[in-house]
Amino acid sequence: MKKITVCRKATFNAAHRLYNPAWSDDKNDAIFGLCNNPSYHGHNYELIVAVTGPIDPVTGYTMDMKVLKDLIKLKVEDAFDHKNLNEQVEEFKTLNPTAENIAVVIWERLRPHLADQLGLEVTLYETPRNFVKYSG
Amino acid sequence: MKKITVCRKATFNAAHRLYNPAWSDDKNDAIFGLCNNPSYHGHNYELIVAVTGPIDPVTGYTMDMKVLKDLIKLKVEDAFDHKNLNEQVEEFKTLNPTAENIAVVIWERLRPHLADQLGLEVTLYETPRNFVKYSG
Amino acid sequence: MKKITVCRKATFNAAHRLYNPAWSDDKNDAIFGLCNNPSYHGHNYELIVAVTGPIDPVTGYTMDMKVLKDLIKLKVEDAFDHKNLNEQVEEFKTLNPTAENIAVVIWERLRPHLADQLGLEVTLYETPRNFVKYSG
Amino acid sequence: MKKITVCRKATFNAAHRLYNPAWSDDKNDAIFGLCNNPSYHGHNYELIVAVTGPIDPVTGYTMDMKVLKDLIKLKVEDAFDHKNLNEQVEEFKTLNPTAENIAVVIWERLRPHLADQLGLEVTLYETPRNFVKYSG
Amino acid sequence: MKKITVCRKATFNAAHRLYNPAWSDDKNDAIFGLCNNPSYHGHNYELIVAVTGPIDPVTGYTMDMKVLKDLIKLKVEDAFDHKNLNEQVEEFKTLNPTAENIAVVIWERLRPHLADQLGLEVTLYETPRNFVKYSG
Amino acid sequence: MKKITVCRKATFNAAHRLYNPAWSDDKNDAIFGLCNNPSYHGHNYELIVAVTGPIDPVTGYTMDMKVLKDLIKLKVEDAFDHKNLNEQVEEFKTLNPTAENIAVVIWERLRPHLADQLGLEVTLYETPRNFVKYSG
Repeated sequence: MKKITVCRKATFNAAHRLYNPAWSDDKNDAIFGLCNNPSYHGHNYELIVAVTGPIDPVTGYTMDMKVLKDLIKLKVEDAFDHKNLNEQVEEFKTLNPTAENIAVVIWERLRPHLADQLGLEVTLYETPRNFVKYSG
Repeated sequence: MKKITVCRKATFNAAHRLYNPAWSDDKNDAIFGLCNNPSYHGHNYELIVAVTGPIDPVTGYTMDMKVLKDLIKLKVEDAFDHKNLNEQVEEFKTLNPTAENIAVVIWERLRPHLADQLGLEVTLYETPRNFVKYSG
Repeated sequence: MKKITVCRKATFNAAHRLYNPAWSDDKNDAIFGLCNNPSYHGHNYELIVAVTGPIDPVTGYTMDMKVLKDLIKLKVEDAFDHKNLNEQVEEFKTLNPTAENIAVVIWERLRPHLADQLGLEVTLYETPRNFVKYSG
Repeated sequence: MKKITVCRKATFNAAHRLYNPAWSDDKNDAIFGLCNNPSYHGHNYELIVAVTGPIDPVTGYTMDMKVLKDLIKLKVEDAFDHKNLNEQVEEFKTLNPTAENIAVVIWERLRPHLADQLGLEVTLYETPRNFVKYSG
Repeated sequence: MKKITVCRKATFNAAHRLYNPAWSDDKNDAIFGLCNNPSYHGHNYELIVAVTGPIDPVTGYTMDMKVLKDLIKLKVEDAFDHKNLNEQVEEFKTLNPTAENIAVVIWERLRPHLADQLGLEVTLYETPRNFVKYSG
Repeated sequence: MKKITVCRKATFNAAHRLYNPAWSDDKNDAIFGLCNNPSYHGHNYELIVAVTGPIDPVTGYTMDMKVLKDLIKLKVEDAFDHKNLNEQVEEFKTLNPTAENIAVVIWERLRPHLADQLGLEVTLYETPRNFVKYSG
């Protein structure tokens, strides 16, 4: 059966800082530079969630985009938007919120809610010039 | 031989509605919501056609972009632009014009006109937030 | 008092056709071309609403963007999105829905709901290449 | 002498929160909602600085874009990028960092460094959907 | 009569260099830096032509966008696209092709072909970060 | 170990022409059209460099984006920006600078400077409508 990928874009605006609590302040500064600012900085994150699977011949949908939009809102936007990622999102209390790790966390939040036969890829733009892709 | 993918972007502006003639009006409303408006709505569709193959060492081209541009115009833009997809494009008289199905139809319209050794992927943006990818 | 302009972007996806009922079909075709398709075509319209006024020293706002967002939704998006402008929006039953006229109608729908001392400009993109600006 | 406007785009990524210290927490929540998060959130701010004046017939420039770029870097980007606006930018220790107020502060930081006969307008995007313009 | 502004976007890809023939090579290098490369460099220029006037009540148009599009093609794109501006566009044989001067030249090429009562503004993007506006 | 792809965007503005020195002028014109202009034309090239590998559990990085940014600057931007590709970039003295060939040359310039276990893909936009992807 033919497979197609359907993609939905979302956004969230959040504060974060990068640091490793096992390191000295000097080492954190050396590795993470401005991103290590203890008072935080922030981004308008842009997220693209891509789901791959067969087209349902009855609806013409691979997945209803409204269902996907609502899932992203419930699992990602409500939890991340206008938040401090380090302090207010459970996973990042013990995990450095780099773009890479944020993408993995989003993927892991969405994966259990999609049917097993569907593929999932997450693209996360931290800025228009820096972005990451993760597919499990 | 090294392979590369060359991509060409095009656009068409069209009206459509989503519905399944085998269903009641109520069921069509429940599944397709606003997209089921019997008076139609419309989109500025953006299309990216990606062709993969070897680079011709004489021209430095995988495929002449002008040839690809003209093919997209002839097979897609002339047929879809400023049209009502449901009423005026043959394939959608019996196929629901979801983004998924439109992408498949575009792929099938272009595929016979490309050399066998070339790969083809179609990306179709229905809106900047909803898009699909199909590669056969 | 210093004045600033605050802008909010919105979108709606709609079908329309251009024609003048006082003209023959041939004249409509000659003037409006493909845009005169009787079966309609459509666009992803992008709207920017710009409101100019003083900054409230207590809030730091010229106008609460959430209030502006909700006003645009109520007066424009709910009425125009996923609609056939000619058939389903009252003003266009007797007014040709060109980008110019749509911008004027949006301006007239919003103007009564803004305080008198605020300026209002509407920018409407019919496509990324065609857009209009209207300020009353 | 003919006047022209030259524009330069820049970006900075920063954390902020909106609140009025004269108000109760409840009132701050009611007015500023999610933007009042005491742990901060953040944005990729996009800035357009527009300078209006005559074209120098010797260079063909209204203002050397490299000089304008360096001025924006020195007065805005170095001070705002990867910072917490409320805590780490002097002006916002006593001024609510709404988009409106940030635009005014940027205008006031740049104005003294431009020749008197030049006009200055600042456009600041807080998100792709929310932006402000200020020209003094 | 209410006035509205209609805008049309176009593009052209051209080579240029900045220099003043009255100066030494060293002075040209000091003022124009990399832009003075004698072997040229180039840009994808983006052009927005904005025409302001009343809405014709018969058509609903301020100006037929197809007429404006064709005028831009004839007077600007055919003359500038895939050209070396310094060597192959008459005006720049004696005028430095800065973004400012290119915008003025485009305005002067278009102005005689528009009705007297219409206003004209030209916006020219040399890059997404550098652009100019000229209205005569 | 989980793999992720990190992407960094860069730009360079350059002049080029397309031609094959083994052909007559007429044949070059027939195949390359306007792109064969002997006086050159140019583009704002946009480049996306994608590096795939495991996430370092200590930093949360696949590759430090600052290191990648500096590598792109050293090997691509410093060599290509504000240059005439045919005359001033070594590889294109004997290789036609089509988008395909430029992408391959960029890939070959970057590949030796990345760790062996990392994957590399280069996407090069010649214009917003024409782009290519190459992954070795």
